[in-house]
Amino acid sequence: MAVYHFGGGCPDPGSFPLDGMAAAAQRALPGLREELCNYPDRRGHRPLREVAAARFQRREGIALDPDTFCLTNGSQQAITLVCQALVRPGDPVVVEEFLYSGTLRALRHVGARVVGVPMDGEGMRMDRLEATLDDLRAQGSPPAFIYTTPTYQNPTGATLSVARRERMLELALAQNIPIVDDQCYADLDFDGPAPLSLKALDRDDQVILFESFSKIMGPGIRMGCFSCSPALQDRILAHKIDGGTSVLAAAILAEYLRENLADHIAEIRRVVSRKRDAICAALERHLGDLCTWNQPAGGYFIWIRVPDTCDTARLDELANAAGIRYGTGRAFHSANATVPYFRLSFAYPSEEEIEEGVAEMARCVRAALPERVAVAV
Amino acid sequence: MAVYHFGGGCPDPGSFPLDGMAAAAQRALPGLREELCNYPDRRGHRPLREVAAARFQRREGIALDPDTFCLTNGSQQAITLVCQALVRPGDPVVVEEFLYSGTLRALRHVGARVVGVPMDGEGMRMDRLEATLDDLRAQGSPPAFIYTTPTYQNPTGATLSVARRERMLELALAQNIPIVDDQCYADLDFDGPAPLSLKALDRDDQVILFESFSKIMGPGIRMGCFSCSPALQDRILAHKIDGGTSVLAAAILAEYLRENLADHIAEIRRVVSRKRDAICAALERHLGDLCTWNQPAGGYFIWIRVPDTCDTARLDELANAAGIRYGTGRAFHSANATVPYFRLSFAYPSEEEIEEGVAEMARCVRAALPERVAVAV
Repeated sequence: MAVYHFGGGCPDPGSFPLDGMAAAAQRALPGLREELCNYPDRRGHRPLREVAAARFQRREGIALDPDTFCLTNGSQQAITLVCQALVRPGDPVVVEEFLYSGTLRALRHVGARVVGVPMDGEGMRMDRLEATLDDLRAQGSPPAFIYTTPTYQNPTGATLSVARRERMLELALAQNIPIVDDQCYADLDFDGPAPLSLKALDRDDQVILFESFSKIMGPGIRMGCFSCSPALQDRILAHKIDGGTSVLAAAILAEYLRENLADHIAEIRRVVSRKRDAICAALERHLGDLCTWNQPAGGYFIWIRVPDTCDTARLDELANAAGIRYGTGRAFHSANATVPYFRLSFAYPSEEEIEEGVAEMARCVRAALPERVAVAV
Repeated sequence: MAVYHFGGGCPDPGSFPLDGMAAAAQRALPGLREELCNYPDRRGHRPLREVAAARFQRREGIALDPDTFCLTNGSQQAITLVCQALVRPGDPVVVEEFLYSGTLRALRHVGARVVGVPMDGEGMRMDRLEATLDDLRAQGSPPAFIYTTPTYQNPTGATLSVARRERMLELALAQNIPIVDDQCYADLDFDGPAPLSLKALDRDDQVILFESFSKIMGPGIRMGCFSCSPALQDRILAHKIDGGTSVLAAAILAEYLRENLADHIAEIRRVVSRKRDAICAALERHLGDLCTWNQPAGGYFIWIRVPDTCDTARLDELANAAGIRYGTGRAFHSANATVPYFRLSFAYPSEEEIEEGVAEMARCVRAALPERVAVAV
């Protein structure tokens, strides 16, 4: 049976630089004798932290000290550590109403009270954030932190405007609340550069930046990083009891990206933006009469609203039976609610798979509608 | 200033197979496109789990299913996860009186009550383990688990006899207490094969086996694993919220070890056993009149007892000033007590460094004795 891979946030396999990474391994290994035979630096292999700083400077125009960066086992470990460091059971954490399911897992694991803020087409609404923070203050329980993916958000694809970013910084600063600024997707811009990150706009060292190499390379490498103030770095690293992040993986990746970062990002941006166009066209053809979505300006995801009458549990059964791997809306909802949405990840499948898979998914959506509606169409 | 590297449990750098690993990277990478572009299997890259099972079978004569193994970021992550899964704050965990400082860190991090059992030259005393378990039962607080490094123990170098291993299994089974059997050093046998592991003697699936690739390769790779029952595996993996263990690092290592495991172990055993002989000879020459130790039959460590009159705080100052990296006895003590011991790790320094460093350490020990004793010598 055909399988349609719209599930995980996985990159285009065709553009993974196998030859480049093999060549990087050849170049890197001879110099690694001492480092491989010792435990890693607590912040991780420095050359990859230098690449992370250079990548940020290239994108944001601001030089961060490589020693403010710490490597992690993907940014998934970064959010897990931040939760362990900053959240006591019952503490509120403020998030977008819809967010990455891996972040939800980390939050729930430490017993956080997940407080979702409603979104619109431009991401988190700042009037609602302000009301939420006021409420929490009135309850005497300010949030441990605010978590946001402001750029090409997962799962909605939305991008927060610069004005909203400035407002979020202002609201957080007023109560001295740290902000986690997850920039996993920021290099995947299809329609021009993304707005500056919260980290780049941050004048008060209140932002914890997350970067990932999973989305420009591949999640199987397991490499991400965070950058924050020295005081927060110490608090977060106190929970990193894993002996350090792989020097072998970090050094090969650093050696590859040191020379190829700009070219490789340009390549994946080209490939993935074509897939974005393909999935938007396929959705228009097959679901344009029934569903709505906003065309993401970057990233990996398209977030589709189904009619309120759609039985999403039935849709899930049908899609699973049809071999469609995708994300249910519920998996991304801050309160685990059933919602009339689903997420398609479009970087991994081929353009042919996108066309066929969307057609198949459209059949499932129609079959999950009440009969009278299905007849009317 | 000269630095003497007797500190961390690091392998011989000269025998790290840089060329072999570079060649393995060349061979492995072409087949990794799909795996690198997806999130890893929850248990980790299967070929390395197969290598782990083959290594165990070669050493212990018993075939474990590769699916009972889960890869971790070194065995340090394994102990961290086991602590998170099995220990609630205040729960006792029974350990050898002296143990690996990284295990102590993980235990203290989750608020375990660390209960050390006295040791003799053959490791943990079973009469004292029995008394400890009886006491805990009487208090209504059985331990969350027993942690032991029965073979070439860190830091003492002691090896538990088979009779004691059988007795430990029996005592634990009577109260249904899991045993963590940390076999990090078991392949480093200099004087003939090590006794069978607790895992190999385990008939009731009560043992969680830890293996590490750090001690036969290098800790900078960050690769270890555990093997246990499916029920315990699920409980432990529920805490592994890091997105999975690096496929890049695991696949290169698996490709290297698939062909070279036996030869490489023979090589490091040869090199490190010479260093063991060198450090024992140097200790005899420089400290034979003052200190005692037992010659380790394998592993990385020698555990030296200084005279009770030795001022270990003064010794630490002197040794640090002399550039000697080593382990204080206190760092390994289950109750963080000041004890008349120190640990030297002998796999990493060269034979020349061993000779000079031990001579230097002997000067420090003598200078940390009360004056009349120093004069008398």
